[in-house]
Amino acid sequence: MKALSRGLPMAAALSVVAPMAAQADEGMWTFDNFPAARVQQAYGWAPDQAWLDRIQAASARLENGCSAAIVSGAGLVQTNHHCIVDCVQNLSSEQNNLVLTGFRAMSREEEAQCPGLAVQLLTGISDVTQRIEAAAGGASAEAFTRARDGEIARIEQECRGEEAAKRCQVVTLYQGGQYKLYEYKRFDDVRLAFAPEIAAAFFGGDPDNFNFPRFCFDVAYIRLYENGAPAATPAHLQMRATPLSDGELVFVSGNPGATSRLLTQSQLTFERDYFLPWRLTTLAELRGRLSVYSDQGAEQARIASDTLFSVENTLKALAGRRLALVDPQSFAQVSRAESDLQTRVSRNRAAQREAGQPWNDVSEATAAYRGFFLAYQYLERRAGSGSELFNYARHIVRGAAEREKPNDERLTAYTDARLQTLESQLFAATPIEAPLEELLLSFWLEKTREYLTTDDPRVRQMLGRESPEELATRLARGTRIGDPAFRRQLWEGGAAAVSASDDPMIVFVRAWDDAARALRTRYEQEVEGPTERAQERIARARFRAFGETIYPDATFTLRLSYGRVAGWTEAGGENVGPFTRFSGLYDRATGADPYALAPSWSAAQPRLDPNTIFNVTTTNDIIGGNSGSPLLDREGRVVGAVFDGNIHSLGGEYFFDPRLNRTIAVAATAVQEALVDVYGMQSLASELRGDR
Amino acid sequence: MKALSRGLPMAAALSVVAPMAAQADEGMWTFDNFPAARVQQAYGWAPDQAWLDRIQAASARLENGCSAAIVSGAGLVQTNHHCIVDCVQNLSSEQNNLVLTGFRAMSREEEAQCPGLAVQLLTGISDVTQRIEAAAGGASAEAFTRARDGEIARIEQECRGEEAAKRCQVVTLYQGGQYKLYEYKRFDDVRLAFAPEIAAAFFGGDPDNFNFPRFCFDVAYIRLYENGAPAATPAHLQMRATPLSDGELVFVSGNPGATSRLLTQSQLTFERDYFLPWRLTTLAELRGRLSVYSDQGAEQARIASDTLFSVENTLKALAGRRLALVDPQSFAQVSRAESDLQTRVSRNRAAQREAGQPWNDVSEATAAYRGFFLAYQYLERRAGSGSELFNYARHIVRGAAEREKPNDERLTAYTDARLQTLESQLFAATPIEAPLEELLLSFWLEKTREYLTTDDPRVRQMLGRESPEELATRLARGTRIGDPAFRRQLWEGGAAAVSASDDPMIVFVRAWDDAARALRTRYEQEVEGPTERAQERIARARFRAFGETIYPDATFTLRLSYGRVAGWTEAGGENVGPFTRFSGLYDRATGADPYALAPSWSAAQPRLDPNTIFNVTTTNDIIGGNSGSPLLDREGRVVGAVFDGNIHSLGGEYFFDPRLNRTIAVAATAVQEALVDVYGMQSLASELRGDR
Repeated sequence: MKALSRGLPMAAALSVVAPMAAQADEGMWTFDNFPAARVQQAYGWAPDQAWLDRIQAASARLENGCSAAIVSGAGLVQTNHHCIVDCVQNLSSEQNNLVLTGFRAMSREEEAQCPGLAVQLLTGISDVTQRIEAAAGGASAEAFTRARDGEIARIEQECRGEEAAKRCQVVTLYQGGQYKLYEYKRFDDVRLAFAPEIAAAFFGGDPDNFNFPRFCFDVAYIRLYENGAPAATPAHLQMRATPLSDGELVFVSGNPGATSRLLTQSQLTFERDYFLPWRLTTLAELRGRLSVYSDQGAEQARIASDTLFSVENTLKALAGRRLALVDPQSFAQVSRAESDLQTRVSRNRAAQREAGQPWNDVSEATAAYRGFFLAYQYLERRAGSGSELFNYARHIVRGAAEREKPNDERLTAYTDARLQTLESQLFAATPIEAPLEELLLSFWLEKTREYLTTDDPRVRQMLGRESPEELATRLARGTRIGDPAFRRQLWEGGAAAVSASDDPMIVFVRAWDDAARALRTRYEQEVEGPTERAQERIARARFRAFGETIYPDATFTLRLSYGRVAGWTEAGGENVGPFTRFSGLYDRATGADPYALAPSWSAAQPRLDPNTIFNVTTTNDIIGGNSGSPLLDREGRVVGAVFDGNIHSLGGEYFFDPRLNRTIAVAATAVQEALVDVYGMQSLASELRGDR
Repeated sequence: MKALSRGLPMAAALSVVAPMAAQADEGMWTFDNFPAARVQQAYGWAPDQAWLDRIQAASARLENGCSAAIVSGAGLVQTNHHCIVDCVQNLSSEQNNLVLTGFRAMSREEEAQCPGLAVQLLTGISDVTQRIEAAAGGASAEAFTRARDGEIARIEQECRGEEAAKRCQVVTLYQGGQYKLYEYKRFDDVRLAFAPEIAAAFFGGDPDNFNFPRFCFDVAYIRLYENGAPAATPAHLQMRATPLSDGELVFVSGNPGATSRLLTQSQLTFERDYFLPWRLTTLAELRGRLSVYSDQGAEQARIASDTLFSVENTLKALAGRRLALVDPQSFAQVSRAESDLQTRVSRNRAAQREAGQPWNDVSEATAAYRGFFLAYQYLERRAGSGSELFNYARHIVRGAAEREKPNDERLTAYTDARLQTLESQLFAATPIEAPLEELLLSFWLEKTREYLTTDDPRVRQMLGRESPEELATRLARGTRIGDPAFRRQLWEGGAAAVSASDDPMIVFVRAWDDAARALRTRYEQEVEGPTERAQERIARARFRAFGETIYPDATFTLRLSYGRVAGWTEAGGENVGPFTRFSGLYDRATGADPYALAPSWSAAQPRLDPNTIFNVTTTNDIIGGNSGSPLLDREGRVVGAVFDGNIHSLGGEYFFDPRLNRTIAVAATAVQEALVDVYGMQSLASELRGDR
């Protein structure tokens, strides 16, 4: 599942692809630097500016980390089921579990608002590189992060002003080679029109996730509302009625979340040998705990399901990334590209002077990080392991301290431009599942002790004379942080209220927050700052060498990828074709979860054409965050909904492997047929075809 | 914990250390090739032949994978608590949990027999290299494994004859450079004399395991009996009363289980990038499942405890091994040693002709293995994930087929020399814990589907239309294999009984045993055979270059290691001293498990000298299997009981790092003082001092 997985490693601000690889169908291109000539050469056709403008205007992103497309003039939006399953869960009741039964609005009146779900449409982009350079260019490597983030906070605040439906975000492209201000129109009244049963959307479950052949109906439809009525969306796409052909040219417009395609060899080695193995081992253990907890009963299964899905999805994604890194051929290619650029730099005196020794600088920063990355992860970056109670308490403790500082000196999360979003999360009445909280806290505290050792003074400070399990129980059961009113009271009480509080979670977070902040500062000064400064210099050298023939790393902003419908050949020689068909679903179904058919699909079997294309693979270059992206033909018609990549696509984090990396989408033909013959939603189907 | 961890990876039959590293205190030396001159040079003293003979005669091994020493003339044997905790468990009842309370025989009459525990004393070694060479030397790489194993089966059978108390084992040294026949006298009446509480023996639990500072009383005493009376053991060691000194010369005599110090770079890369990450991730998930299962109640905790301990211990050991392999400095050293040997070979025409391209051959075999190692692991090597019911069923199904073949054509486990041991395990009335069986089977089946994918025809054959959980439940609850009488009946009924059986576990195993055997054959022919033949050639080249200045890889046979009492300095600069003292135990105790004191130790605090050395680190080169080894001074007196290594010692699987690799032992002074002042066992203490 390709929703943007939160919690990426240190790679967040890195960018630009190794150009030797920018052949084939590689690239997550910005709409203002699309390689039309290259596409023309490869496919004998390329989009013009009008085509690009039309697609850009009809593309959208969900704030929860997915992509989407406007597919009718009345605000209808196509995305994946897994992108809005939270909404389906929220609309469910104990008596009416819509996750299991699906949701069908047979008229607009039945469309149901998704609490907290917001959709953003891109309205403008401007360049702010000079402002950032002026503010941070002169800063030392240690002070760089703070100086840059301070200026970003100012720009975003000025842009946003007082407009409630406007969102402003400074995006770092090309490793700091460019900073651009993206402006969005935000829709916060979003209503659910159609969601299939999870058994149809996620048929095959975790075993089939990131695999192919695949038989998932992972689509959903939502509608944007303004002033209580469907939004008018004249810029919209239309669905194509004819089937896809093997080899045909296709495009994906969406918001890939993050890639790390210009990590240096030293960083990739760190990922391969330290970061990923640690993360995989801990996620696997958490998965084991959650699955046995979940097996204890229906209520436990319900409580654990979201977290378990997210852990399994991340685990598989990271495992795929690690496997890509241990592939000798791919790593050698990265290494060659790096040497090649180094040689080019060394041949040009001006480039040499400007660049310095950036690869060495990154290598040193990475070596420094290796010495404390576990402490940084356990006490700062991933402290609490996802416990909501811990997160609330830390925001309250930190927010109280940060809000006393000037805006541009605060940690990013507490700058004025972002406080409103944070507060809306903090005060929302989200239910807290105490047993899950205990499980997560206990796991986190045990692993912290295990990895940092019992002899670490910070661990001693956290645990005192309690065991991790005792402490987790005391915190989860004793705190009042689960109560939104209590959170609001502490937040509004500020530093005084926090320091006076005897709530056990507040006391716990307060006690070692200085140690955690010290790790964050150390990370910024010894790792992030020096790395980002060095990578800016590498990016500049790369620009000198290759100009605009390269694309920036993914940043969860709008990109266009081109490719073709194609299967692939496994290393062992096995050919995998690009299509699955309805018949394959029925062959694969065993009756046992996760291969049990949804009843609607069982009943519809006689009505469905067994040869209809169900899922399809293409060579487009995508990554987590692209979930929900429209798959488009050369006429800009919707021919599918992208929902996943194959197992080899996971290495796309680091490099695009044209032999193996494949995008997976639900074909539009399957959508058309199933909406009518499985779900009886003729009116939705005709809206998609543009009949009304 | 350094007991021999069962289930080593493909490294089982490899050997010989990289000689460039054979400086410092490296080496697990055979007693007939001990580097006395080197020790003399380093320490100004070295053992003579009489000393070596005396130590060899008093050294022992436990059949469960541990080492031990004879420490009185009346059959008293010193080992670790964790080596005999199974016996303590077996002697416990629901009302009297001796694992928690410890066991003290205040007289010989109170000594209690350990069911199934056997101790072996080495009585003779002879060279059988020529016989093996004659039988297998001419075989093709594909047929080599079978030809060699057939001859080994014949040799062992001839040696053993009809002597009930004799055990014979052909041991492969120097990667097939030597084959030696080891003969043992076996004691199967072994009685427990003393075991401390697990809270004392395993104080600090998993968090402190493989760490230091350490405060464990991990010793135990058992006694060998013959004809119902304590065995006379004139060849025995004596305990020293004076404390250890920092820097003093010490020896470890024991049975290191297995090392892989001559894996080629291609094999080490496979271990680092494929085998270990896969194993760590799956063990971590199993650990997570077991720990939540265990937390459900006291009975669940009891059921899961052995398995959970073993999983945690293996997990930590393998994690340490992986970390050693990603250390760039160590890997570069291995790589240099390999290049060095390759250069030497290439300079000598005869050597070149004899060796061929063995590194290439190994690399090709490893690449072939990469293509099917997951299938081999899930369906053959680790099929069942430790389920007793599955293991019984597979032995019954395979044993029936194998026993119809001539002895030297059978799989090793079913040769005549080994059938007796197998049958005694098969017919023993070991309790089966059904919920644990379900957990293990379900985990195994789920992971098999996950890693081999739903589309693998073998997976489809195994699962049919059931989910892994449904199948696991049906097998665990429906089979009668848990009943020893039923097993005996099937075993004695042979092939006819097996093929007629409708027991679900027998039916299940039978259905895909051909597919599993095909994977074993493929492994032998494409991986094991070619690798072993190539490694023999590497070993011969090494002999040419370095002669007898090298030691063979560990083989769970008797070895002697030399070293000194010493702490170490961590990469970050932190110094770790070699001693902990009684006072430190009381400082570290928190009252919360695993840092809760045993009541006897709480009560004894006023009587104990806080400065007594408790645990000690030394530079000796040991590995799993050395648990229970005596730590000896230059006079051959017992100065400690080896029970663990530090975290860096885990890389000792691949190379010895003299900077960091440390052995951990319970100091004899702590044993003497605690036996008297904590446990009131004056008579045992004086037997150890040789007072009677």
